[in-house]
Amino acid sequence: MAKVKVHIFLKPGVLDVQGKAVEGALNGLGWTGVSEARVGKLIQFDYAGDDVEAEVKKMCDTLLANTVIESYRIEVE
Amino acid sequence: MAKVKVHIFLKPGVLDVQGKAVEGALNGLGWTGVSEARVGKLIQFDYAGDDVEAEVKKMCDTLLANTVIESYRIEVE
Repeated sequence: MAKVKVHIFLKPGVLDVQGKAVEGALNGLGWTGVSEARVGKLIQFDYAGDDVEAEVKKMCDTLLANTVIESYRIEVE
Repeated sequence: MAKVKVHIFLKPGVLDVQGKAVEGALNGLGWTGVSEARVGKLIQFDYAGDDVEAEVKKMCDTLLANTVIESYRIEVE
């Protein structure tokens, strides 16, 4: 049984409105040292099967990430 | 300048509907080995200032996480 983590972020150059909102809010609360905020998704699951990396890559391309605007990174433990 | 990553997940016991949806969809697409899927948020930003861990903890408690139902983990590089 493998523990899988998939990190999904908007590609650089795609406007990240959630990130901008977080940055603006933190700046407004007095944390003016915060910059370049980006908000992504983190999907965790257990996977029972062979060839984990390749299968998870297929899952990302099929369902988990919108590869037009998002990039992903896979971590298998 | 510190690179900060904050991982935010629903606490165990809180129903994660997004996770259930991902799990159901992957199972339906033939990946029956997927279980215990959970979907969280990952917030990344640069922080210029002192006492990074303590400040980021304050940010999480104030704005980034809803500590009633969410737990968070801070990574500083």
